[in-house]
Amino acid sequence: MKKKFSVFLSNVGTCSDRYCSQYATPFSIRELFKRAASIKELGGIDLVGTWNISPATAKEVAGYLKDSGLTLVSIAPDLFASPQWGKGSLSSVDPKIRQAALDQIRQTMDLTAELGCGLLTIWPGQDGFDYPFQADYLVERGWFAEGIAKACAHNPKMKIAMEYKIKEPRTHSYISSVATALLLIQEVGAANLGVALDYGHALMGYENGAESVALLKRHGDRLFHVHINDNYRHWDDDLIVGSVHTIEFLEFFHWLDRTGYEGWLTIDQFPYREDGRDAVAESAAWMSALMDTAEKMDRKELDSVLANKSAVQGSRLLRKTLLGRA
Amino acid sequence: MKKKFSVFLSNVGTCSDRYCSQYATPFSIRELFKRAASIKELGGIDLVGTWNISPATAKEVAGYLKDSGLTLVSIAPDLFASPQWGKGSLSSVDPKIRQAALDQIRQTMDLTAELGCGLLTIWPGQDGFDYPFQADYLVERGWFAEGIAKACAHNPKMKIAMEYKIKEPRTHSYISSVATALLLIQEVGAANLGVALDYGHALMGYENGAESVALLKRHGDRLFHVHINDNYRHWDDDLIVGSVHTIEFLEFFHWLDRTGYEGWLTIDQFPYREDGRDAVAESAAWMSALMDTAEKMDRKELDSVLANKSAVQGSRLLRKTLLGRA
Amino acid sequence: MKKKFSVFLSNVGTCSDRYCSQYATPFSIRELFKRAASIKELGGIDLVGTWNISPATAKEVAGYLKDSGLTLVSIAPDLFASPQWGKGSLSSVDPKIRQAALDQIRQTMDLTAELGCGLLTIWPGQDGFDYPFQADYLVERGWFAEGIAKACAHNPKMKIAMEYKIKEPRTHSYISSVATALLLIQEVGAANLGVALDYGHALMGYENGAESVALLKRHGDRLFHVHINDNYRHWDDDLIVGSVHTIEFLEFFHWLDRTGYEGWLTIDQFPYREDGRDAVAESAAWMSALMDTAEKMDRKELDSVLANKSAVQGSRLLRKTLLGRA
Amino acid sequence: MKKKFSVFLSNVGTCSDRYCSQYATPFSIRELFKRAASIKELGGIDLVGTWNISPATAKEVAGYLKDSGLTLVSIAPDLFASPQWGKGSLSSVDPKIRQAALDQIRQTMDLTAELGCGLLTIWPGQDGFDYPFQADYLVERGWFAEGIAKACAHNPKMKIAMEYKIKEPRTHSYISSVATALLLIQEVGAANLGVALDYGHALMGYENGAESVALLKRHGDRLFHVHINDNYRHWDDDLIVGSVHTIEFLEFFHWLDRTGYEGWLTIDQFPYREDGRDAVAESAAWMSALMDTAEKMDRKELDSVLANKSAVQGSRLLRKTLLGRA
Repeated sequence: MKKKFSVFLSNVGTCSDRYCSQYATPFSIRELFKRAASIKELGGIDLVGTWNISPATAKEVAGYLKDSGLTLVSIAPDLFASPQWGKGSLSSVDPKIRQAALDQIRQTMDLTAELGCGLLTIWPGQDGFDYPFQADYLVERGWFAEGIAKACAHNPKMKIAMEYKIKEPRTHSYISSVATALLLIQEVGAANLGVALDYGHALMGYENGAESVALLKRHGDRLFHVHINDNYRHWDDDLIVGSVHTIEFLEFFHWLDRTGYEGWLTIDQFPYREDGRDAVAESAAWMSALMDTAEKMDRKELDSVLANKSAVQGSRLLRKTLLGRA
Repeated sequence: MKKKFSVFLSNVGTCSDRYCSQYATPFSIRELFKRAASIKELGGIDLVGTWNISPATAKEVAGYLKDSGLTLVSIAPDLFASPQWGKGSLSSVDPKIRQAALDQIRQTMDLTAELGCGLLTIWPGQDGFDYPFQADYLVERGWFAEGIAKACAHNPKMKIAMEYKIKEPRTHSYISSVATALLLIQEVGAANLGVALDYGHALMGYENGAESVALLKRHGDRLFHVHINDNYRHWDDDLIVGSVHTIEFLEFFHWLDRTGYEGWLTIDQFPYREDGRDAVAESAAWMSALMDTAEKMDRKELDSVLANKSAVQGSRLLRKTLLGRA
Repeated sequence: MKKKFSVFLSNVGTCSDRYCSQYATPFSIRELFKRAASIKELGGIDLVGTWNISPATAKEVAGYLKDSGLTLVSIAPDLFASPQWGKGSLSSVDPKIRQAALDQIRQTMDLTAELGCGLLTIWPGQDGFDYPFQADYLVERGWFAEGIAKACAHNPKMKIAMEYKIKEPRTHSYISSVATALLLIQEVGAANLGVALDYGHALMGYENGAESVALLKRHGDRLFHVHINDNYRHWDDDLIVGSVHTIEFLEFFHWLDRTGYEGWLTIDQFPYREDGRDAVAESAAWMSALMDTAEKMDRKELDSVLANKSAVQGSRLLRKTLLGRA
Repeated sequence: MKKKFSVFLSNVGTCSDRYCSQYATPFSIRELFKRAASIKELGGIDLVGTWNISPATAKEVAGYLKDSGLTLVSIAPDLFASPQWGKGSLSSVDPKIRQAALDQIRQTMDLTAELGCGLLTIWPGQDGFDYPFQADYLVERGWFAEGIAKACAHNPKMKIAMEYKIKEPRTHSYISSVATALLLIQEVGAANLGVALDYGHALMGYENGAESVALLKRHGDRLFHVHINDNYRHWDDDLIVGSVHTIEFLEFFHWLDRTGYEGWLTIDQFPYREDGRDAVAESAAWMSALMDTAEKMDRKELDSVLANKSAVQGSRLLRKTLLGRA
């Protein structure tokens, strides 16, 4: 499997949380590109609308992009960071907001295409609910599916990767899991609609990431994009890749390879207290080392483990692969 | 909404856990029927194969059933309690076990039909995996879907309700959530395949149960059966209904009504340390009282809350409904 | 039990999260006081250093406070919102930061005393760690305890309430639970050191809040302050009080009463998408109604339930109390 | 650090859960000893009262023990497996049960001493509660502490290791965390009372196991015993050591060494679907390999990481140690 590593541009910069509005002095967009380009394992960059790029700044950003030597992997329209989306975007109860969200998506699709990139990422983080007895689940999900269908139809040549997450910033998201994303895909029925699997979101939703990759293969080969980071399973901690988990990353990389995934792996972390550039470089170095480890696993022996579903045999193989001990 | 309450027969008896093989002296099947029948709110009974009924005991059990005056709501074939299913039933890597599981399901379908009942519950608790690098997710899910398709075809007049659960007894189940159950249903494409929503399983998987009811309505009206109990969200504690949560039960009952559910609500709890009969009676009494409370909610006001998606307005309505305080 | 309700001043305003820097237009401090004062159930106000008050603004804020008619309940020094505390305050590996944190605490103690208030709240949200192999737990905890001891000694007449939380903003906090807080209290040995129990933090750490109140009673009567809000147990969602849980709030209020708590209940929520004033008013209305419900519970019957430890008997009593149904 | 590995005797046998009473044919005690003795990394054995040994079988078991060549590490009196303890042991509301529990402990202490072993393990799994409004936390905790004090006084030469766990089989345990165990120890004030840290219990309670080791060092050097297994953080899955987590085990072993722990590491897993002997052998092999990996970590560099609290520097060191990649 080829190592195609990207990062969300803002990740090499600074972070906010709900208590502290800036953990460090922010960098300019130009500086962020330079910082990302300085990490040797990276070949690509992912952008977020509003935060990193808009029609007004597109030309300027295109220049930085060219200078950086990085490939534009995807743009995610802002559907979560501006106050107007606070109560939902495509599923908002306000028809003007639903229209504005669709406009925002279409505009970002056009911008993405103009920059020669064929992948849009949609993360509907504000589409969901917080309280019991707050939402009409039937009606809002209907609006959401309609909006996505229109977005897909806007440019059938552009792939749209839907990013799922069980919660945050809402306490409950509509597109909460790999399976809810697949249900939406089947409902919409557009060939250009797939999934952006964020490894941390999968962990947080008690998914085994490798199994989620398999599900996406099984139901129409719909893995369009991968985001990657680490956490403690209970929350989207967005830590350095490999800082907490090892074996499940090996399995994840193996199944990406096994199912023939050829897309990018985009680092998506929140290094609140670390230097962003250095923390991203760590993620890239771990990814590279873990992928090499996964590849050196004895494939014939692994197939035998899976055919027997033997935990003990699998445990031996893993220990040998990881620690060199039979 | 009509109050159609049932219980799993064993619930009015005694329990085991992995440390203590019997918390109290077990009752005979005859005694269990008498205990269930003594709870005035109950109109139905659900049975589990092997534990409660088998071809050999069917006639005897039919007699107890008749004497009890209870309606047979559903039978669940044993796919989880006998050692042969320990490593999986319909998804086992052993073709003999897969065949045995299918045979067990067909036999239980026939038995259920003979007893005049049209609903089978399938809980594939052993179908999943425990360890990373243990399972071939693609192949095993394929076997599972094939088996279910054959079961559905065996008697298209009998409804089959698939019960999902995120984990336990495996650390990961294949049919883990309302959405994975729906994906299976769409794949199999049989009109007689639906879902048994266990409220506690929904809570444990960080689902809002009311939203899950809506999802099942939206994707083909597939809510065939409901199991009910309470827990602390992290595990399938199987507590008395209403002992921990109040508001989410109100919302759940409201959405069952709102989506036109006409089936049974089957109590499914594990009263390890309580008298089983009394604990079940408590659940039934709470269900009745909570359903009445949900029904007295001002429907027009609620529709306005949902149309505005207003948490504050919803909070007021709920407080008024539940505590009589504006 | 007397209803002494307060709120964190910022709660009646607007919120940020890590994605959206402002969900609505912020209010001035003066406006926030007016908004808080407009909620009839409120008698007190809690302030946060930096955000709401500093030596430079103390006089101005004192004026607003007087005009509002609210009692100053407590001030929490900023040990979590300024970038300097990002890597820890009293437990920082940098001795200058440790000193600055202690200075900040002492200065806030003086300010609090000047305003005629005898309670300081310390929330050491940045004191902990994010990654495995990141922290020297022995040394850092030692520094933290030393700092707290010095703070307690600075003004023995002022009570200091230590607020615990299992995580966030760090993935792991040092003062993580009611029991770790009590261990610190026993180590420091100062009579003016106690606990601020945030109900949502207790829930999030899988504590039963009522049991935590009992523990604080048992180990030296150390409940000095209460913060209150609701959540889904997995995260500090900071929702409207009573919007998710009912029964556990009844038990919590009962045990506050049972153990003779005479302090304030301070609302501490994050109404990202609601009008802050209205969301706080909802919390206050729920608290009032739930406390009345808890008080009308038959005390003799409850004592019998507890003496028998009978879940079934308790269930009956609760249903009767809450839903009026035997 | 010396490799002193033990196992709970029953672990090399078969398992039950609440659905399946036997996943395989059980072994005799004699067979279990032989199976344990066949694992070359094991030097010790831990026993559970009732399950493995009683006064009536002591002589017979002593014979098997001698034949096995294994050292008796500890005995845990049965306070969780017999129906009489179902509603609590030392904290039961029934004074006869409290007395019986104390008698059981004293008897097991005597038996342990007779067998030349100086360590008793107490796991009070049934002491806690399931429901809100079920327990008088003040009174029951008082009884529990009294009972433990009497047990400690029965034989001050015998160490008693108290095992904490956040839940299961009760939904809430009284001795729930490392800090609640330490509070009890401080209350009782007996020099022979310490903690049995079960690594899986720590993970399940969102503790960092290494930090828990440090806490026990800090508060009186109270780590008396270690149980070890792996899980997915949400439940006591009791999996093969190292099957899910890698880095946190390295940190755990490092801190055991750093704090001078000289006791045993007792494997405590539930291999429901695996051959028990083989699953235990896997755990032992992982422990040995992980301990060697932890020891080869550059200690000077690690001390620098901790002194700087640098996640990035720590990440580099770990990657180099584990994957050999700078």
